[in-house]
Amino acid sequence: MIYADYAAGAPILPEVLDAMLPYFGASYGNPSANYDLGREAAQAVENARGIIADSIGADPSEIIFTSSGCESDSLIVRGIMARNPRGRFVTSTVEHKTIQEAARWLSDRGWLVDRLGVDQTGRIVPEALYGVLHPSTVLVSVMYANNELGSISDVARMAEICHERDILFHSDCVQAYQKMPLNVKSLGLDAASFSGHKIGAPSGIGFLYLRDGVEIDPLIFGSQEGYRRGGTENVAYIVGLAKAVEIQSRTLEERIKKTAENQKRLIDGLRNVGKLNGPEPGPDRLVNNVSFRFDGIEGEELLELLNLAGIAASTGSACNSSDGEPSHVLLAIGLSPEEASSTIRFTINEDLTAEDIDRISAKTAEFAESLRR
Amino acid sequence: MIYADYAAGAPILPEVLDAMLPYFGASYGNPSANYDLGREAAQAVENARGIIADSIGADPSEIIFTSSGCESDSLIVRGIMARNPRGRFVTSTVEHKTIQEAARWLSDRGWLVDRLGVDQTGRIVPEALYGVLHPSTVLVSVMYANNELGSISDVARMAEICHERDILFHSDCVQAYQKMPLNVKSLGLDAASFSGHKIGAPSGIGFLYLRDGVEIDPLIFGSQEGYRRGGTENVAYIVGLAKAVEIQSRTLEERIKKTAENQKRLIDGLRNVGKLNGPEPGPDRLVNNVSFRFDGIEGEELLELLNLAGIAASTGSACNSSDGEPSHVLLAIGLSPEEASSTIRFTINEDLTAEDIDRISAKTAEFAESLRR
Repeated sequence: MIYADYAAGAPILPEVLDAMLPYFGASYGNPSANYDLGREAAQAVENARGIIADSIGADPSEIIFTSSGCESDSLIVRGIMARNPRGRFVTSTVEHKTIQEAARWLSDRGWLVDRLGVDQTGRIVPEALYGVLHPSTVLVSVMYANNELGSISDVARMAEICHERDILFHSDCVQAYQKMPLNVKSLGLDAASFSGHKIGAPSGIGFLYLRDGVEIDPLIFGSQEGYRRGGTENVAYIVGLAKAVEIQSRTLEERIKKTAENQKRLIDGLRNVGKLNGPEPGPDRLVNNVSFRFDGIEGEELLELLNLAGIAASTGSACNSSDGEPSHVLLAIGLSPEEASSTIRFTINEDLTAEDIDRISAKTAEFAESLRR
Repeated sequence: MIYADYAAGAPILPEVLDAMLPYFGASYGNPSANYDLGREAAQAVENARGIIADSIGADPSEIIFTSSGCESDSLIVRGIMARNPRGRFVTSTVEHKTIQEAARWLSDRGWLVDRLGVDQTGRIVPEALYGVLHPSTVLVSVMYANNELGSISDVARMAEICHERDILFHSDCVQAYQKMPLNVKSLGLDAASFSGHKIGAPSGIGFLYLRDGVEIDPLIFGSQEGYRRGGTENVAYIVGLAKAVEIQSRTLEERIKKTAENQKRLIDGLRNVGKLNGPEPGPDRLVNNVSFRFDGIEGEELLELLNLAGIAASTGSACNSSDGEPSHVLLAIGLSPEEASSTIRFTINEDLTAEDIDRISAKTAEFAESLRR
């Protein structure tokens, strides 16, 4: 199989499994327990917290472990808005499912929500913020890199605009993390969401960066994580996540270089059969994302032919794949429903060979042409 | 080490690790993905859901996977109360930290909360409900078995009383699950919380039973679990949980018998040095719980001596262990703060030998006497 859906989830790194195994065996202590087995588990969690904090330029006290990027997103949005029943929330029209659903829920439950549109490449124009901020706005949440298009928005500038008005700025950094350099302090973020399963850790672990001094209500109640996130710690996955972070941080530069080469090769290979969605390769686009539309074709049908040929890709976000609706992101950048439905997203990595890439191009072209006939 | 803190977390069963390993390796697909690798993962999740539903007499559609018992508790309480901003919530004075904190949060955010007291053994008297139910009560949450005392309450009768008034009844079944027979239908529960890490699965997986027809707001937003719980599924842990459930369900009867023998032996061994908290062994008490108070002693000090002698136990719930406050459960059954602080909880299993049990008794007696001098 040629796997080209890395944004939906990446294989677990072998070193990550090795790091986790002791915690599936003799090291089964509950970190809250007052005996050696528990204390060792607590120490392992704190070591991991330090490694993870370092990777984004944060302090360990600013890391809250969660079960996923979705939980991190839900925690920050509800954690801030619950304290501000009359506050307004701002987000964009191209956010991940979780933030979209959070915004819908807030509206249903009486909060006011304002939305930022995007340009034709899926980037949010920071100055658009001026049009939607109100005196009662308390939180703005805009993703750093889009999961369908790889479009990178200028969140640093947006944070700046928010801070001029004492508004908190959160960014979903799930797609950007370990695909580009990322420092929450130089970006000026108040909060940011991260996930493990896109970077070689298992699915079921994530974290929220929350700047020291920002207070939130918990989502899951309990004494863990300083009463900000209850539930006995998933020590194995926390340790595994730290190992993945350690490896990915070390290899970031080289991975970016190789993945960008693969991206260029795949885009070049597909240009004559389809049209690129989102920004041209470069500083505005994640190196791992290749989104193409193939006019006159149903993406789902093309995907199934690719699957039968041993190529795994996606029509968009994995989280939306079962809905059968055209992608809200692709509609937001101005595509017609037909164009949106004709889109395939390939998300690649540094390990795919030139032959893999060429096979993806060739098979996609072959199937697209046969579907068009 | 002699481990006697099984209620804080149990070692992972070797079969559970074996069942999970493929999902840390080649089977890394995202269950939402539309290709074979994803579909196989989705199938594994649904197989697990069936096994787990069977174990409590539920339908698979009534199982929502979560990251913990705490998340299940938080999901049901907020999921119901968010839909009922003027509704009242009822819970007991001896609930797990999560429900306590949820109740406190509801009060802080404008909901009305009523509390049920307990008898001297930590059991909630069902008829006490009549005194606290209001026309606007929408949800009652009472634990099935208490985590500190092992006291088993008559939740079936409480559910009946609630249903006479169209009030929903939820029970935290984390401690009871796989320690006694449990069928959500014969108990008449509308919702129930369960956790993996007390039954041989890892920490980081749990589930909520939610009766078909009961609607809740999500806690974590996203498309998974029928839009009731977002986040890419933790396939490995879900499969591991199902394996643990399968094994524990099969061995339940024998485990109860052996654990009850260990319980009796430990209680008999400690009677001359301390006083049993909670119900006498029998139908009102979980077989795995032995809670004793040792007058004139600080439980923390006794615990540390036991730790140095290689015996792991607890002063109460692991989730409260770092607070340094006397247990709210022990105060609720009428103990003085001093009596509460002198308490040690041993939670045992079927694998402890008579020698292990006798060593626990002997060391506890020895240290208690030396601390008293």
